[in-house]
Order: sequence, then structure tokens, then C-alpha cells
Amino acid sequence: MYELHFAVPMAGAVLCTLNSRHDSSMVSVLLRHSEAKIIFVDHQLFEVACEAIQLLEQGDSEPPKLVLILDSEHGSSPASLSSNVYEYESLIASGSCEFEVRRPKSEWDPISINYTSGTTSMPKGVVYSHRGAYLNSLATVLLGGMGSMPVYLWTCPMFHCNGWCLTWGIAAQGGTNICLRKVSPKAIFETIALHNATHMAAAPTVLNMIVNSPVSDRRLLPNKVDVLTGGSPPPPQVLAEMEEMGFRICHLYGLTETYGPGTYCTWKPMWDDLPSDEKSRIRARQGVHHVGLQEVDVRDPETMASVPTDGKTMGEIMFRGNTVMSGYFKNQKATEEAFKGGWFHSGDAAVKHPDHYIEVKDRLKDVIISGGENISTVEVETVLFSHPSVLEAAVVARPDDHWGETPCAFVVLKEGCNTVTAQQLIDYCRDRLPHYMAPRSIVFQDLPKTSTGKVQKFILRERAKAMGSLS
Amino acid sequence: MYELHFAVPMAGAVLCTLNSRHDSSMVSVLLRHSEAKIIFVDHQLFEVACEAIQLLEQGDSEPPKLVLILDSEHGSSPASLSSNVYEYESLIASGSCEFEVRRPKSEWDPISINYTSGTTSMPKGVVYSHRGAYLNSLATVLLGGMGSMPVYLWTCPMFHCNGWCLTWGIAAQGGTNICLRKVSPKAIFETIALHNATHMAAAPTVLNMIVNSPVSDRRLLPNKVDVLTGGSPPPPQVLAEMEEMGFRICHLYGLTETYGPGTYCTWKPMWDDLPSDEKSRIRARQGVHHVGLQEVDVRDPETMASVPTDGKTMGEIMFRGNTVMSGYFKNQKATEEAFKGGWFHSGDAAVKHPDHYIEVKDRLKDVIISGGENISTVEVETVLFSHPSVLEAAVVARPDDHWGETPCAFVVLKEGCNTVTAQQLIDYCRDRLPHYMAPRSIVFQDLPKTSTGKVQKFILRERAKAMGSLS
Repeated sequence: MYELHFAVPMAGAVLCTLNSRHDSSMVSVLLRHSEAKIIFVDHQLFEVACEAIQLLEQGDSEPPKLVLILDSEHGSSPASLSSNVYEYESLIASGSCEFEVRRPKSEWDPISINYTSGTTSMPKGVVYSHRGAYLNSLATVLLGGMGSMPVYLWTCPMFHCNGWCLTWGIAAQGGTNICLRKVSPKAIFETIALHNATHMAAAPTVLNMIVNSPVSDRRLLPNKVDVLTGGSPPPPQVLAEMEEMGFRICHLYGLTETYGPGTYCTWKPMWDDLPSDEKSRIRARQGVHHVGLQEVDVRDPETMASVPTDGKTMGEIMFRGNTVMSGYFKNQKATEEAFKGGWFHSGDAAVKHPDHYIEVKDRLKDVIISGGENISTVEVETVLFSHPSVLEAAVVARPDDHWGETPCAFVVLKEGCNTVTAQQLIDYCRDRLPHYMAPRSIVFQDLPKTSTGKVQKFILRERAKAMGSLS
Repeated sequence: MYELHFAVPMAGAVLCTLNSRHDSSMVSVLLRHSEAKIIFVDHQLFEVACEAIQLLEQGDSEPPKLVLILDSEHGSSPASLSSNVYEYESLIASGSCEFEVRRPKSEWDPISINYTSGTTSMPKGVVYSHRGAYLNSLATVLLGGMGSMPVYLWTCPMFHCNGWCLTWGIAAQGGTNICLRKVSPKAIFETIALHNATHMAAAPTVLNMIVNSPVSDRRLLPNKVDVLTGGSPPPPQVLAEMEEMGFRICHLYGLTETYGPGTYCTWKPMWDDLPSDEKSRIRARQGVHHVGLQEVDVRDPETMASVPTDGKTMGEIMFRGNTVMSGYFKNQKATEEAFKGGWFHSGDAAVKHPDHYIEVKDRLKDVIISGGENISTVEVETVLFSHPSVLEAAVVARPDDHWGETPCAFVVLKEGCNTVTAQQLIDYCRDRLPHYMAPRSIVFQDLPKTSTGKVQKFILRERAKAMGSLS
């Protein structure tokens, strides 16, 4: 996939990387929508691809050509390849070194389509331009503090916003790419030690895995490792523990529609002497826009008025600039909606602090309204996370006849901590939050997640709805 | 000048920084040519500015408005200001904070005009665009390995290619700017120690001053200091001594026409174990183009054919891309000449090594042709520099009835080394160079320089010409 991030654009074609966890039915939907002409597929996913193509053939779509990527170490070739399947290495070996690079006619031409990972229902194809990808690559390298020749450990998948544009960024800095077949804390520690990795990027879920890993899986870090994290607000507890282990966290924020990173919480030296928990609280803010983006703001989605910088008034995070998507592929309606008023609407509810740093409070549609008060589910989750027995937590609205909605928490406890009761957790929250914000119901249950580690709250909301009213 | 690098473009105007060493006559020529409307002038240069305006008034040009910048520490206000002179701080204090930022209509609009510093005769006004300045700022920050919040010591003047675009680049990284009223090795060492400077940029002349400074002027560096150097090829000897003192040198190359830095000698780990002199020899190469530039090449200026990567065949360095000037202001003819064949012609003679790193051999017009052989004056100077008694050296062509031209060296000896004779230096060169390349004549004499520290070879060539033929 890394090689193809260069080969495909240089051939004048458009990249469309697919999530490796999609099933064949989703793959066939995306192949049809993207009008893909060629699929490059790793041997581990060969069957999924073949099934997806069969599904396409059952429709009236012309199936794409298939190129199979074998791995001499981990995989073997299927006994026989059918005549319309090519093998990657031999296909390349048969090509000419004197190939012509097909430059884009305009820098605004598309370089890739990234299907959103589906915290909502139907994926949308987010179109990136060459210009935007170039600028976001440089901006991400700069905000990540990558000097010449970084050693980058890939834990954030390359199919996710083209690896936050670091597929191209690492190459621009002459870096080394370290890829893992399977991401686990043990593999992360071993790989860092083996290759002296200097940088990695990971969703908070991965950070959570790291700080909760058994000591026997860990290694001393050979050097400071800079970790770019984003995708959801990282719990302060997790940030603090990562820092203690020798990682240096840069918290960034963005969406598929902003080429991945759009803002980051750039650190001010004046914060160095704050207590550790205060530092983690600040580091969890989404911060300011990077040098590749024109502007980020928090605005009222109806009036488009900018909210005051009081750290309290909620609005919607909006973006504009070169590193905002060109639009949704073949979806004019969704594109127009997303760009209503001339800004891209993120769907995230946030406040602006007096220093203009923004802080996400919730997804706009996740905000719980209880007795007329807005409750940020992220704030409730942060308190739950600070409980020593809690491994994961997600809070959603549960319909309520009296209050309208009440907070309902889905919780996964750490191993060996299953004596904690729902009431204990509720009391814990009531000690630390305004009464109305504390969960009224706690469900101990695994959390449904997308392949990039985001909790799928719409599924939890349905479960909470099915539970009916408490009052 | 730093503030004005932001204020002037934000007012929708075009910057034109002038060399602080120009005399009033040159300043009046540039004011007229640039059609300047307002001059901002430091109190130290107030008289020069007033004289220049008087010269303008003697012509028929409307004189620009004058804004005087006082310095509470070092300067005092002239007794009385005439009615058409404004004082900077009070002028700003009288303005409104609710000003309107006038964005450029197009990103290709001019942001600045930089007059070439005149190693040739008449200055030309090099036009920079907003787009080019943005890209070169980021590229220079990246190649200089500047992380977040660098502490930058200004020794390369801001009037020189807008400080190699680091006026904007340092701001983009949230850095601190340290300015010196007067650049001297003592001031450099003291300032680095006082402010923990992390980066500086300096012409090789300044590096030469540093390595030849008395030990009493030096301080231990509080940290590694990254030094960007360029403007002329740095002598390997100087590079080696700087590295020993704890500076880390990044050698870059460019011209006013390429917004300052265009290429840099990015370091390969495989070179780490080479002997020190070999490392310095490699570090003196101009290297490869940075991420902001489309392409650099070495081509035959007549046929436009790319020279082979043999490290031997000389051609002219040519550039193309976003960070090449828009053109020379009001000089269509010079612009067309400079862009002949679709590439910007640098006027520098160079070779391409097998790894595609370029190496400047000489200015095209400085190359000496002796008995039909090309002689790179830079190579001869490098040998002279390696002599322990030589402080500075510049080699030019001396007309010769028999050979056509022969190399003539102008040399400045180090203090206490004036017993060295011309013949000793000639013998020293003959031991280390092909016979025809060694200087035939040595002149002990101070070197004429531009304000940015470049030796003015055209003056030396005239002197050598006046000496007549040796044969």
C-alpha cells in the first residue's frame, strides 16, 4: 500500500484505499461506487476481494482487474491463479524502468478518495486533491516535529486518511517506514526497541492498550518516541501514563474531510510547571490549526456566528482552507450540506478557550439534553476513565419520560476488577460532576468499534433506546 | 523590519527591503525603480534616507513618506522631525486594532521585491509571490530541522531574500527571534549562551570569522546550534572547525531568484564514518532540491541537455518550480533571458555526482580558461584555504598573451602569519593541484565584499586585468 501511494498518482490514476476489515459485501459496494479499475490486494484478503468481485459480477458492473500481493515471509501463493489475476512482483518486473510520469493537469485534480469509516451509516467518498495532500503532508510533518529521516512505526492504518498524509510525509523527510502485520502493545514495544523508532501515530484506543498492557510485554524505550494521537479526545489519564512511560504525546484533531490532522494542541512552555493532571487536561484540547490550513473556528451552526472565547459556549467546529476536501464523490447534496455557509461543518461540538485553543466537547449529535441542560458525553467519559477499575467507557443518551434524556454509560472493567458495581461508579461520578451529568444507568458490556478504534455510539444509542425510560 | 514582514503584506502592499549598507545614491535609485510609497527607516540610517529623498526630489519623482523607527535603548530622536516624517511607535499607537487584513486577490500576487545584492553591476528587482514565499518558508524550516519554537539568532540579514524566508518561517514555527545590532563572533557566542539559541543562518564569511576569532571571544555552546550556511561554497576547512566547536552545519544553496534556499546537502547516515576532511568535502556540495521546489538540474546552457551524473561534466545549474521568482520587476528582457528554455538559469557552473547531488564548481563567468582547460576558481580557493596561514582567498582570471588566462589569487593572511611568501603559496598549490590550475600570481590585499559578505570578483578581475600579461 505504501508503494502504491506513489505509483498510482504517478500513473495519473486516483488512489482509493479500503479498510482491511471491511467484508466482501461492503468492499463490493465501495468498488462499485468508486468505479475502481484495478484492485491491489494482500494475500490475507484475497478471498474477500474475490467474493466482492463475484458480487459485482452478479450486478451489471464490469469487475476490476485483480493484482495479488504475495509476501515471501508470511504468505504463499494460492495454488493456481485464474487468468484475470496478476501477481504484483512479477507484474512490476515485466514493466519498463523508462515509464512516463503522468503529472496531474491541475494541482486540484484528485489524488485519492477516502471512504469515511462509518461512525454514521453509509460511507461517503471524500475526495483529496494533489494540492491538499501536499500541504497536509508538510503540515503534519511539521506539527509532529519530524526532523530529517524519522523512523516511523505505522500503527495508524494507511487506509485511514492516507495515513494522516504521512505516507507522503515520511517520504518527504527521507524517513524509514516500519509496518506491523498486527498491532499489539508487545509488537509496538519490540519494534520500537529493534528499530529505534522515533515517531508513531495511534488512536487513543491504541494508547489505552499500551498503558494497560502487562509489564512483561513492555520494553524500555531506547529514546523519546513522539506519538501523534487523534480520532477521539484522549482521556487525560491515558495521556499522563503514556508520558510517564517515555512517550511524548502530540494531540491532534481532524476528520477524514480535513485530510486527517487539521488542528493540534501545540504546547506552550508556560504549561511546563503545571501539575501532571492539569497538563493532561490541557493536552486533551484540540488546539489551533496547523500551517497548511487557512482557518478553524467554532460557530453557531444556524447563525454562523463565531462563539465567544469563554471556554463555555458550545458551537460547531468549522474549517476552511486548502486541506479541506474537494467534496464527496458523486454526492452533490451531501457536499453542499457539509459546506453550508462557506465553511466545512465538522459535526463536532466544541468551545473556544480565551487563548483561542478549541476543545471538543462532543459529537453534535451525541450531546445529551437532560432537563434542558446540555451534557457533553466526553466529560462524563473522562470522569469514568479516571476510575482505577475502568478500562473503557462510552456514554449515550437514554430516552426518559421525565428528563427527556439521561446519561447511560457502557463500561468495560479492567481484568480482575469485576467486583465494582454500577452504583459505585454512579456514586464516583456524582462526587465529581454536577448531579444531572452523572450517569443514571451503567451497562457492563463490550463496546462496538469501527476498524480504526472509534466507538460506534449509534449502536449504543439503539441499545439504550431499547432499554426504555428510567423514570 | 521583522514586524513589517507581516504588516506590509497584511496591508495589501509589497515589501521592498533595502540593504542597510547602501549609500544614499543607491537608495535613491532603488526607491525610484521600486516606486516606493513609504520608507520605514531605523534611526541609524535616517540621514542616508533623508539624503536619498533629497536626490529623488532633485529628479521629478514624488518622494515617499518617511517613517522613523527609534530605539529606546540605543538611539534618540532627532531634535525635531519635519512635518512629513512620522515616528513609528506613535504612528502605530494612533491606528485601530480593528484593521482589515487585505488578502491578496491571487496567491501569485507579489509579496516582495528583493534587489540582487550586486556581485554584478546594476541591481535587478526580483519579484516574490505569496505562494512562493509560503512554500519556501516551510521548506526552509523543514530542511533546517526546526522543530516547534526554535530560538533563532539573526546573523543573515532580513533584507537578504527576506532572511531566506525565515522571517515568515520562524513565525510559522512559533519561534523566538534574536537580533544583533552588529554581528561579531563575540556577540554571536554571547547571544547563543544568553538565549540558548538553537538555530542561526550565516554566510561562509561569518563562519570564517567565527573559526578565526580569538579564544577569549568564545563561549562554550549551551546546546547543539544548527547553522544554515550558503551564499558561496563553504571551505571544507571552515566546515570541519565549526563542527568541532559544536555547531551542526547544514549547507544550502540558492540565489535571490530562488527565494534564498533552493537546494541543500542533506546528510546520508552512510557518510557518518568517513574521515573528517572527506565529510567536509561532501558537506560543501549543494545537494538536492528541497520539498518546495519542483526540480533542479545541471544542463548545458546552449543545448539545454542534462549533463551526465559523472561528477565531472560541467553545466549550468537550472531551477523550475513554485519557489523560483515571478520575474525581474520592470525588466522583461532580463526576465526572458533568465528563463530561456523554460528553466531559470542560475549562472553557476556545476557537476552532478552519481547520487544526483550537485556541486558548484564556479560562477559560469568566473571559470578561468587557461590553455583551453577549464579551471574552477573555487577548487583553487579551497586548496589555498587549507593552508594554515590563509584567512581569505579569491581567485580570478588574469589575461595572458600565451595561455589566454591564468589564475591570479588575492589572499589575506591570518594575523601573525605575514612571513609567508607568494612563492610558498604557489608551491603549496602545485603540490595539490594539476600544474595548470595553480595560481601564477598571488596578491596580498584585502578583498572587496558585498554587504552580505560575498567577494566582489568583478572588482578583482579588473585589478588583475590592470596587472597585464605575465607571459
